[in-house]
Amino acid sequence: MVPAPRGGRRPVPGRAVHRSRLTPVVSFLSDYGRADEFVGVVHSVVLTICPAARLVDLTHEVPPYDVAAGADTLVRAAPYLAPGVVLAVVDPGVGGPRRRVVLDCGRHLLVGPDNGLLAPAADALGGIERAFEAEDTRYWWPGSTARTFDGRDVFGPVAAHLACGVDPEAVGPAVDPASLVRVTGPDPDSDPGLRPGLRPGADGWTVCAVAAVDRFGNVALHARPSDLEADGPVAVRPPGGEEQMVRRVGTFAELEPGELGLIVDSSGRLALVLDRAPAAERLAVRPGDRIEIAPVAAPP
Amino acid sequence: MVPAPRGGRRPVPGRAVHRSRLTPVVSFLSDYGRADEFVGVVHSVVLTICPAARLVDLTHEVPPYDVAAGADTLVRAAPYLAPGVVLAVVDPGVGGPRRRVVLDCGRHLLVGPDNGLLAPAADALGGIERAFEAEDTRYWWPGSTARTFDGRDVFGPVAAHLACGVDPEAVGPAVDPASLVRVTGPDPDSDPGLRPGLRPGADGWTVCAVAAVDRFGNVALHARPSDLEADGPVAVRPPGGEEQMVRRVGTFAELEPGELGLIVDSSGRLALVLDRAPAAERLAVRPGDRIEIAPVAAPP
Amino acid sequence: MVPAPRGGRRPVPGRAVHRSRLTPVVSFLSDYGRADEFVGVVHSVVLTICPAARLVDLTHEVPPYDVAAGADTLVRAAPYLAPGVVLAVVDPGVGGPRRRVVLDCGRHLLVGPDNGLLAPAADALGGIERAFEAEDTRYWWPGSTARTFDGRDVFGPVAAHLACGVDPEAVGPAVDPASLVRVTGPDPDSDPGLRPGLRPGADGWTVCAVAAVDRFGNVALHARPSDLEADGPVAVRPPGGEEQMVRRVGTFAELEPGELGLIVDSSGRLALVLDRAPAAERLAVRPGDRIEIAPVAAPP
Repeated sequence: MVPAPRGGRRPVPGRAVHRSRLTPVVSFLSDYGRADEFVGVVHSVVLTICPAARLVDLTHEVPPYDVAAGADTLVRAAPYLAPGVVLAVVDPGVGGPRRRVVLDCGRHLLVGPDNGLLAPAADALGGIERAFEAEDTRYWWPGSTARTFDGRDVFGPVAAHLACGVDPEAVGPAVDPASLVRVTGPDPDSDPGLRPGLRPGADGWTVCAVAAVDRFGNVALHARPSDLEADGPVAVRPPGGEEQMVRRVGTFAELEPGELGLIVDSSGRLALVLDRAPAAERLAVRPGDRIEIAPVAAPP
Repeated sequence: MVPAPRGGRRPVPGRAVHRSRLTPVVSFLSDYGRADEFVGVVHSVVLTICPAARLVDLTHEVPPYDVAAGADTLVRAAPYLAPGVVLAVVDPGVGGPRRRVVLDCGRHLLVGPDNGLLAPAADALGGIERAFEAEDTRYWWPGSTARTFDGRDVFGPVAAHLACGVDPEAVGPAVDPASLVRVTGPDPDSDPGLRPGLRPGADGWTVCAVAAVDRFGNVALHARPSDLEADGPVAVRPPGGEEQMVRRVGTFAELEPGELGLIVDSSGRLALVLDRAPAAERLAVRPGDRIEIAPVAAPP
Repeated sequence: MVPAPRGGRRPVPGRAVHRSRLTPVVSFLSDYGRADEFVGVVHSVVLTICPAARLVDLTHEVPPYDVAAGADTLVRAAPYLAPGVVLAVVDPGVGGPRRRVVLDCGRHLLVGPDNGLLAPAADALGGIERAFEAEDTRYWWPGSTARTFDGRDVFGPVAAHLACGVDPEAVGPAVDPASLVRVTGPDPDSDPGLRPGLRPGADGWTVCAVAAVDRFGNVALHARPSDLEADGPVAVRPPGGEEQMVRRVGTFAELEPGELGLIVDSSGRLALVLDRAPAAERLAVRPGDRIEIAPVAAPP
């Protein structure tokens, strides 16, 4: 992917150049927030077990208990995850019968609850080669009861042992990857507005759902560029709002002040944006809301 | 603590396996928040002095100036703190006569103001073997005046030097551990509702205080399981609220939707919880509020 | 700067003692916030390219798109930045024609957009020796289109390559440092209240602007101690508020409860403060507001 350097004496660029097996990275995502000490305690546990580990906090602001949002975030991050261990804990079933699993995807080992959080990211990382249930308490935090804080007591310690070279098959019995829990979204027939991708609506409009609103107020849709046939401008109709014209642009910088744009965002989704202003406020939408959209060349 | 592995050829698990003296950990707690650059500047100062240091942010969202809350957080984190230096700064008396101290607890060195923040955690970490006042300005940030930001100018630099192997006795004169400031809570006689632990109230009810509310809305009480005689269900009466039945459970997963539970939380405290919902909203309580509690087998 | 130790056998203190060339530090500032995964993905990209890098998050809570606020924060942090790479991304023009630059300041390499964010910090770090435009896509993230998220696709990867030893001149053509964008503040003649430094106002009062309000509610002014002639007490008049007396103090600890003080803050600015309480609430001011100030010895 990285071409040979043009000049013989210049440093050779590319991702492979500086890599070393000496730095085991643990990428960490949760719904713990940062106001409590939960994230810090997990860091401390990981470094106690594996002092060489390098922790990356992907985010800890997944909405509490929102497994689907956590799974989406992991999928978006997947192409950029440093090789190593991925520790993900959004675990509303903690203490219950859900399994604690390790998924081996080759360059990445995913650790977390078997509740739908990990499987989509595992697919995005190349698929699951092997899976194991982290049952062997010798890899848990010593003395832990593992009833309410498995990030600290089980998942963090297991991730740390893996980061320091323990083979995944040591942590417990093999699990059939086909048996892993997969969360399916809302039923598209009962609730078409929440279905990923665009679908026909009334009067020639198509309906899609708001996937996410980021810090800048950009409105990511559950839709990809291939979901829209035409390349031209579109009209959008937010819930309870007025129809608005939207220009297709490649960058924020192409937009005039106050002009709504439809962009392909950094995760490859279609997104409604303004230049240096929050489109979510302008449209008054939140994640889960439905937006109607139609090409302007064929107005409804 | 970690038993010998059962299989001779499997990797040997346990905390001791991967440990190395090469990674000096600095665990860092403060009330600085993350909106300003304060935390980042302290990180930068520590790494400038000791590039090998590994910083763990326990939390920086201690309420401003709240020494008691910071001390409580350190005590909860203590059993999980990686061996190394613990840098803690909640320092309303900065610039005043309070001492700047280093407490040697064997595997941990605590650095911070002598205002009650450190002593309880030092006890939890095994007790204070030696204590010193960090007076030697050669271990401070060069040229610092140390009047308003001692985390950057004094505590961070001293922690970094300790992390890189400086002996605590080098940083300044010895301090008698018995002379360290200890914060006592509110007077239980004048304000029984704020006293840790349960105590008899009117009509057979006992009164205790809300110790903390976490991100998930779990309501931790100033009480431990041994403070309750019976194992059965209890009734609780929040301030100004209706009496509610509460079931004793071991995990969140045992609760029915909407059912209040009394659990032993991850720090060993009694906590009022709901499954996947904030009990603090349901009960309308905040830290410091009083809650009345009574066993249902002997209703008041 | 660090004197020789007094005792021959004591460890030699000072910043130079523990330093090593083995730990390349990347100090990272942005307006990404922490609710999304943006910061974590940039960390992951940096560590994928340069696993030895040590990342320091200065802050990611720069107000969205606020280049001037980001530049101010970098200037304040500059004296404390660990030697290495400084990655700064507040980039409202992403995707537009603004250049992506690397500024070589000797012990620090600054990486970010050429929009005024970097130049003031470069001055504070000793001045720009060389500058380059990061055009060589071999140092970008492989396959990136670099249209909406240059922190991930360009600036992060370039910073990582620099951290691992790539010479700045390898990343692209030289740029004349004099051609770098510099943001000038509001015109002092058209809006005297927003001019840094104090200036004469009506009736003997001088006017200055609120530069920042930190987590503790301290009100930093666009003024330095040398901007005030007298050392004695002053009176301040917040917008729409009553005149209040303010005592000059060296530390928070000198203040009586509820007493307003004028202090030199940890960045060397004049700041209006209370002891353990938010002066910004008392004065009802926000960044950008004007405050009038006058020495009390010569009351207006």
